Amino acid sequence: MINLNFNKIQGLVPAIVQDYETGEVLMLAFMSQDAWEATIATGKATYYSRSRQKLWVKGETSGNFQLVKEILVDCDEDTVLLKIEQKGGAACHTGHQSCFYRKVENDGSVKNIGKLIFDPMEVYK
Amino acid sequence: MINLNFNKIQGLVPAIVQDYETGEVLMLAFMSQDAWEATIATGKATYYSRSRQKLWVKGETSGNFQLVKEILVDCDEDTVLLKIEQKGGAACHTGHQSCFYRKVENDGSVKNIGKLIFDPMEVYK
Repeated sequence: MINLNFNKIQGLVPAIVQDYETGEVLMLAFMSQDAWEATIATGKATYYSRSRQKLWVKGETSGNFQLVKEILVDCDEDTVLLKIEQKGGAACHTGHQSCFYRKVENDGSVKNIGKLIFDPMEVYK
Repeated sequence: MINLNFNKIQGLVPAIVQDYETGEVLMLAFMSQDAWEATIATGKATYYSRSRQKLWVKGETSGNFQLVKEILVDCDEDTVLLKIEQKGGAACHTGHQSCFYRKVENDGSVKNIGKLIFDPMEVYK
């Protein structure tokens, strides 16, 4: 069993989340040791919510679970890359397919280039 | 000009680095405000090295610069995604194309699935 280094960011490692078919980067979240073990045990991406300070099974509210297809670890063993199937088609709480739906233009402004999949008001009430 | 939130991780934001042509995730690094501004100003990916505690122009030692093709920001404005052209073909200091060259198997062991581009002993002496 590989041991990740959770010591660099207060007991957490960043997890990059990528669509397993298209390669689109959908989001970045953080995992504690418990979140990491839960993800491997259940096959559903599980993170540590820094705002709520607890384990967070992605999709527990929206139903948009992330089924883990492949897990990769980096050279330093302090970051993981999850290749997942995104249920519902949207990873972002704003209803966009990806959290990275805004592009930084040359003048420093941002432009929305993302695809809106659902209305967050409908999903989260 | 967009203001990123540098307050969540000791003045840093994670930067996910992706090949602009293939979509392969190459590495994750961190940016300080100075690194962020340098990246935008120069078009060369610049990070903050936590181990050396200073700005780090990726490729300054190896010559393997990362030319920034596109920058995206996430919903929370605390993570960036860089789509880059990797000079020399390898982003990882181990000589692999990607830092994510090891796959976690079902039994928790890891398997090297990465492509070795250069011999790090030759490049870093």
